[in-house]
Amino acid sequence: MTSFFQDIEPLHYDPNSTGLAYRHYNPDEMFMGKRMEDHLRFAVAYWHSFAWPGGDPFGGQTFDRPWFGDTMDKARLKADVAFEMFDLLGVPYFCWHDADIRPEGDSFAESRRNFEDIIDYLTGKMESSKTKLLWGTANMFSHRRFMSGAATNPDPDVFAWSAATVKLCMDATHKMGGQNYVLWGGREGYETLLNTDLKRERQQAGRFLQMAVEYKHKIGFEGAILVEPKPQEPSKHQYDYDVATVYGFLKEFGLEGEVQMNIEQGHAILAGHSFEHELALAASLGIFGSIDMNRNDYQSGWDTDQFPNNVPEVALAYYEVLKAGGFTKGGTNFDAKLRRQSLDPVDLIAGHAGAMDVCARGFKAAAAMLEDGTLEAMRAERYAGWDTPAAAAMLDGDLASAAARVDAEAIDPQPRSGRQEILENIVNRFV
Amino acid sequence: MTSFFQDIEPLHYDPNSTGLAYRHYNPDEMFMGKRMEDHLRFAVAYWHSFAWPGGDPFGGQTFDRPWFGDTMDKARLKADVAFEMFDLLGVPYFCWHDADIRPEGDSFAESRRNFEDIIDYLTGKMESSKTKLLWGTANMFSHRRFMSGAATNPDPDVFAWSAATVKLCMDATHKMGGQNYVLWGGREGYETLLNTDLKRERQQAGRFLQMAVEYKHKIGFEGAILVEPKPQEPSKHQYDYDVATVYGFLKEFGLEGEVQMNIEQGHAILAGHSFEHELALAASLGIFGSIDMNRNDYQSGWDTDQFPNNVPEVALAYYEVLKAGGFTKGGTNFDAKLRRQSLDPVDLIAGHAGAMDVCARGFKAAAAMLEDGTLEAMRAERYAGWDTPAAAAMLDGDLASAAARVDAEAIDPQPRSGRQEILENIVNRFV
Amino acid sequence: MTSFFQDIEPLHYDPNSTGLAYRHYNPDEMFMGKRMEDHLRFAVAYWHSFAWPGGDPFGGQTFDRPWFGDTMDKARLKADVAFEMFDLLGVPYFCWHDADIRPEGDSFAESRRNFEDIIDYLTGKMESSKTKLLWGTANMFSHRRFMSGAATNPDPDVFAWSAATVKLCMDATHKMGGQNYVLWGGREGYETLLNTDLKRERQQAGRFLQMAVEYKHKIGFEGAILVEPKPQEPSKHQYDYDVATVYGFLKEFGLEGEVQMNIEQGHAILAGHSFEHELALAASLGIFGSIDMNRNDYQSGWDTDQFPNNVPEVALAYYEVLKAGGFTKGGTNFDAKLRRQSLDPVDLIAGHAGAMDVCARGFKAAAAMLEDGTLEAMRAERYAGWDTPAAAAMLDGDLASAAARVDAEAIDPQPRSGRQEILENIVNRFV
Amino acid sequence: MTSFFQDIEPLHYDPNSTGLAYRHYNPDEMFMGKRMEDHLRFAVAYWHSFAWPGGDPFGGQTFDRPWFGDTMDKARLKADVAFEMFDLLGVPYFCWHDADIRPEGDSFAESRRNFEDIIDYLTGKMESSKTKLLWGTANMFSHRRFMSGAATNPDPDVFAWSAATVKLCMDATHKMGGQNYVLWGGREGYETLLNTDLKRERQQAGRFLQMAVEYKHKIGFEGAILVEPKPQEPSKHQYDYDVATVYGFLKEFGLEGEVQMNIEQGHAILAGHSFEHELALAASLGIFGSIDMNRNDYQSGWDTDQFPNNVPEVALAYYEVLKAGGFTKGGTNFDAKLRRQSLDPVDLIAGHAGAMDVCARGFKAAAAMLEDGTLEAMRAERYAGWDTPAAAAMLDGDLASAAARVDAEAIDPQPRSGRQEILENIVNRFV
Repeated sequence: MTSFFQDIEPLHYDPNSTGLAYRHYNPDEMFMGKRMEDHLRFAVAYWHSFAWPGGDPFGGQTFDRPWFGDTMDKARLKADVAFEMFDLLGVPYFCWHDADIRPEGDSFAESRRNFEDIIDYLTGKMESSKTKLLWGTANMFSHRRFMSGAATNPDPDVFAWSAATVKLCMDATHKMGGQNYVLWGGREGYETLLNTDLKRERQQAGRFLQMAVEYKHKIGFEGAILVEPKPQEPSKHQYDYDVATVYGFLKEFGLEGEVQMNIEQGHAILAGHSFEHELALAASLGIFGSIDMNRNDYQSGWDTDQFPNNVPEVALAYYEVLKAGGFTKGGTNFDAKLRRQSLDPVDLIAGHAGAMDVCARGFKAAAAMLEDGTLEAMRAERYAGWDTPAAAAMLDGDLASAAARVDAEAIDPQPRSGRQEILENIVNRFV
Repeated sequence: MTSFFQDIEPLHYDPNSTGLAYRHYNPDEMFMGKRMEDHLRFAVAYWHSFAWPGGDPFGGQTFDRPWFGDTMDKARLKADVAFEMFDLLGVPYFCWHDADIRPEGDSFAESRRNFEDIIDYLTGKMESSKTKLLWGTANMFSHRRFMSGAATNPDPDVFAWSAATVKLCMDATHKMGGQNYVLWGGREGYETLLNTDLKRERQQAGRFLQMAVEYKHKIGFEGAILVEPKPQEPSKHQYDYDVATVYGFLKEFGLEGEVQMNIEQGHAILAGHSFEHELALAASLGIFGSIDMNRNDYQSGWDTDQFPNNVPEVALAYYEVLKAGGFTKGGTNFDAKLRRQSLDPVDLIAGHAGAMDVCARGFKAAAAMLEDGTLEAMRAERYAGWDTPAAAAMLDGDLASAAARVDAEAIDPQPRSGRQEILENIVNRFV
Repeated sequence: MTSFFQDIEPLHYDPNSTGLAYRHYNPDEMFMGKRMEDHLRFAVAYWHSFAWPGGDPFGGQTFDRPWFGDTMDKARLKADVAFEMFDLLGVPYFCWHDADIRPEGDSFAESRRNFEDIIDYLTGKMESSKTKLLWGTANMFSHRRFMSGAATNPDPDVFAWSAATVKLCMDATHKMGGQNYVLWGGREGYETLLNTDLKRERQQAGRFLQMAVEYKHKIGFEGAILVEPKPQEPSKHQYDYDVATVYGFLKEFGLEGEVQMNIEQGHAILAGHSFEHELALAASLGIFGSIDMNRNDYQSGWDTDQFPNNVPEVALAYYEVLKAGGFTKGGTNFDAKLRRQSLDPVDLIAGHAGAMDVCARGFKAAAAMLEDGTLEAMRAERYAGWDTPAAAAMLDGDLASAAARVDAEAIDPQPRSGRQEILENIVNRFV
Repeated sequence: MTSFFQDIEPLHYDPNSTGLAYRHYNPDEMFMGKRMEDHLRFAVAYWHSFAWPGGDPFGGQTFDRPWFGDTMDKARLKADVAFEMFDLLGVPYFCWHDADIRPEGDSFAESRRNFEDIIDYLTGKMESSKTKLLWGTANMFSHRRFMSGAATNPDPDVFAWSAATVKLCMDATHKMGGQNYVLWGGREGYETLLNTDLKRERQQAGRFLQMAVEYKHKIGFEGAILVEPKPQEPSKHQYDYDVATVYGFLKEFGLEGEVQMNIEQGHAILAGHSFEHELALAASLGIFGSIDMNRNDYQSGWDTDQFPNNVPEVALAYYEVLKAGGFTKGGTNFDAKLRRQSLDPVDLIAGHAGAMDVCARGFKAAAAMLEDGTLEAMRAERYAGWDTPAAAAMLDGDLASAAARVDAEAIDPQPRSGRQEILENIVNRFV
């Protein structure tokens, strides 16, 4: 045991606690025939919790962690503390980028050796922990070699480097029994159209994604391949702007049956959408996969990656998740970082614990709304007119036939109330 | 002649004028083998210029037009004044919605009679005018029957009504020799997900668009079918959010070869994009069609529909249009309204004339940049590495082969300057 | 009794109800020595609930109300229905603009006669109702005469008209025993700086506000004069941008002791602030007055004026209100409109009832947080260092003396955790 | 001479150049009786051009500068290169933060020694250069000791440290003959209201500013004290939100005659304003000082600090500057950074040269518009009604007297066109 978390005890469910405990998260409680833990499938993000130094564009490191530094010893210490936190929290999953877990080497070969050693070390730790890997991913945005893109780089050598990196990370994810492999393309976009061949770059990105999918099948990896939409930041414009954009991209490259979405609330907001919109759209298109459950400050125009804290919002998100059938391979990843002033080990625990409780409470409300059925009954009733044979026939017919009904039936449609306030009141009975 | 424009004279090209004349728009001047007028293909929007009363959400009518009112006489007077303005400006095209040109009747049949009479009247006026129809479209968002959608309405009768409306408007567009037929779905979206069946509504919208395309072929209309993306307003979320979203939608319904985009600067901005982004993306996807050249105030979060007035921005837009091959059936529609304090006939003329001049000046800069070639040469040079056989082979190969290059060739990619400031300086030599 | 609300019964407190009842709003329940009703002081906004036709910038009237029309009979019918709703809801207050309650006449004199007759009619209705007037205000933004401003108009005659209008409305508010008089300047701003004399317009606005305050004292009106900040819409820029801006304006014109703020959540958001920021700032500056409790859609850039529905957000707002000492003359006005698809009388009742419940629940959480004291204790502890005599002396001293401490005491400040996540968790125990 | 800029030659005015030269900036050209250089007063920002490594929130250093590192030798090398660039560009001014020019020491005393040595070194370089100091400022936002604020920190020791820092920097600015001293409070704000005593922090900030002003007088510094408004980033909310907010702050602390504004286009936009709005407002309040001429990307919600490149926008800004009387002690500081992909020395030169040309061109247009006089004549004519004795008397009178005019004179104000499009057309004749 490291001394980092000192005397913090493992957290338990205690609905009346005012201290470090779960007031709502009760892993074994059953909902719709499944344990709460198996519904929510929480994961800790290695990068924000263990690799981020607390900097922002106007200031540097605020956190003072004993594992900061670029050596393998530090990387192992970081892993030790990470698993101690996983155990304290009782989270079933974690996620990593290659760059979070290993020091960068002076060459690809050295970085690979570092990475493979750490993968072995993490795999060893997993043997004595209940925490498994939700997903692995490659950081292809922080190093200056990626400043103009990874797969979309004007330099084919960077494409090759990216291929080697994804291969390495997917191999490791496979080896560790990861449930998914994620691609997020922070530099797959542009700073200015003036120096960008948009068409060529999108072709490179499409081909790269095809190659990753082909490789998955080649090695027998049965996890899901997930793309994580984000509109911008770090790039001015990113090709994976939002769910609808990625859907078009997948269709263009014939990948809509192979790739699913990892949807983040913060990214949804930056793209001008609500989180539940992105979830509902992905579900309706058959590409829903997993979520990053971290909110964005509504008054900030950049990615604030905060722990969720608003139960009604979280409830609406899980309502869409449940309507989509719940998670299969996906889960609830906290891609959230502490505020940079939250310096202490207890902040790290409290940030996650509070978020897990907010999610548990939102999830319970969502499950109750779904079981209650009023919302879905009212939705179905609103569209009931479309369930008639005549309506179905109209969709199968042509424009002139549909048009002809107006004269033939002297149609004069009368609007009906959309009932938004009443529906919002119903939601408020549950959240 | 009506007396509306009183003693305003037809506008001419006069580069030194400080009055009502074109300082830059010179229709017959040749660029890249084509007359400026044939490049720019300006169109006046009937609705903003002749039907809009000057209201906003906090105030009512400010304009005092002799043709306001719901009679056929007023509708004909409106048409007379409209063609007088087309002649004063010398614009080659105009555009209409059904609701702009005819009074609403008490039934579909009566509205149709009104519409058909006015179409005859407009067709008559076109015989003695050089101004032709760029596109027609149906207003399926203003009347309360459309409050919950047109094709996406929960009531199938509204779908039928919409089919009858589009049929009527497409027939009229065809009859008038319109170059395009446009669909903009201001109510094809939702106010709240709580009462919305997103999947069903998108299916309705997709089928409706298929039916419209089928009908186009049935009647032999050779114009383009254009969809106009907009993210929101009036709806909280609109299904035709932006170009990328519509592309996915077209792919889903097999329409990517049949439908093109009518792209508006204001809508691009509301969706978080630059205008040139939307143009470049549509061109790269092969779905570029036409433009609505009206800007949005950058500090306002709603659709301000202002006349363009920033030459450098307009130049970058036409640069993308020219790179896409220029307009074929599309054109430059001023979907712009006067500010509601601009009450006078001269404001209407000056608003259009100033916009035409801004476009002409931007277009000339764009043509010069393209002919100069520096920008395109620098762009090509940036991607030159991809033009080698090895790079092409890498794209044809698999992930492991691409990855293997890193070790085999000891790749260590070195970043190169993206040259953004230098490229911006080059643009500033032309605008 | 009109037949508008048909068989809807007066609403009562019933914590287990799933129908039209209050699950949380219990007017007589005591908190901190005061009845809940007297804490919250709910008010209905006449304009949204009874005068707004359901239009938006892209569509016209959707509501079908028997009192729509410009006659005195219709105005009296509207008043009858309004008071029926006040009674059904049991709200203690309402608010009006002159334009909501009377038909516009052909002259100021005729409008005044209409207004005074309706004021008499409303005053009569108030005698048999428990509902009182929270505030009156003048609509100086809808009519075209105000298109370029009211007090800030380039035409002095509009200033005079505005003076006459405010005099009339303040007289009526005084006569009806109104608790406050509100000024909101939707047109007191500009569309373009190019035609605006910013300095002159601000001087006109400042003098007008002084004149209104002087008049209040002259007639012995003891209510508060409130200004309602809003950044933009309908104007591109409004002079009453936000609380901080209005504070500077009040200081400039010597009015900071005479005028308070009516703060709206929607306007706060449009100005880039959280609601609680505006409340906390006004309280810290001593100018907090009243609130408009209507939310804005976070993904829309215009004023959506929706009923509140997020309890945690509302709780944080009432927490600031309670910390400011609660309402004295102010209250909770629902400046909220139904969605334009919510056509039915029951929607109007449900919209208000749900909002009142959300507020009641948020208020109870706020009161509990304040009584618990943990948040305030942690806040006080964070600044405890400033409560020493040395710190106070430093503030009273000069820069060089403060600077000298660094060397003399070898100061090397060490950061301490800001505890944001822990504080958010504490809030979540109460909301 | 260092070898950094290799064979780049000093830039000269050459209107036909397509290379590294000024096409518009002609320092000695006279406008309104003053040299262009003396109008524009360009300054280079030391931090962006010489201290920024090219990082962003998702990636680290991209620039590879020989002077990066924390030694005094590196700091002197940096100064050498900086003055080489000043000479190449021929800029009359530069600006610094303490942290840009000296390595951080292990104690305040060591940092001070480093700082004072570098100030001597820079002062020496200024003797053989035409480049002077526009302003100095203290970086009180990057180091972790400032994470919770400088003057507004909950820890009084940080206040003392800040006092010592400002004293040191103001002394150095005074010694170097700086024209202004600037305060920008990136951490003078909050991350969450939950841990913030807003009132106390604003009092600390107010007192600190008073102490700085008192110190200025004590040492006889005759430069201007400038505050630079910014709404947010790095903090969620900053107390110096925008010009109007700072004005209220200055009034509260009695500083409106002592402190002026340094206004940045990017910050204006982030606060929801146009640049020209902030300039016009500051001028109308008598607190205009200086500008940071760097634009923000309109589609990005964070501070992009780009070189200006849109002439029409820049022209409107200088138009407001000229109407305010032009710069006295202030100037045009390029608080702009290269895009992080612009790696090369030539990018640094081209970024500044292009910006200077854009400014020169915008300035010339602004001067021409002012000399032409049409805009100002139209503005004056719009308000002419207010220049009558009757209108002036109305402002001096009371509400009832103004109101009485409506009846007495049977006032019925008729709106007049605001002429926005015509005014925009006039601007377009000059830009």
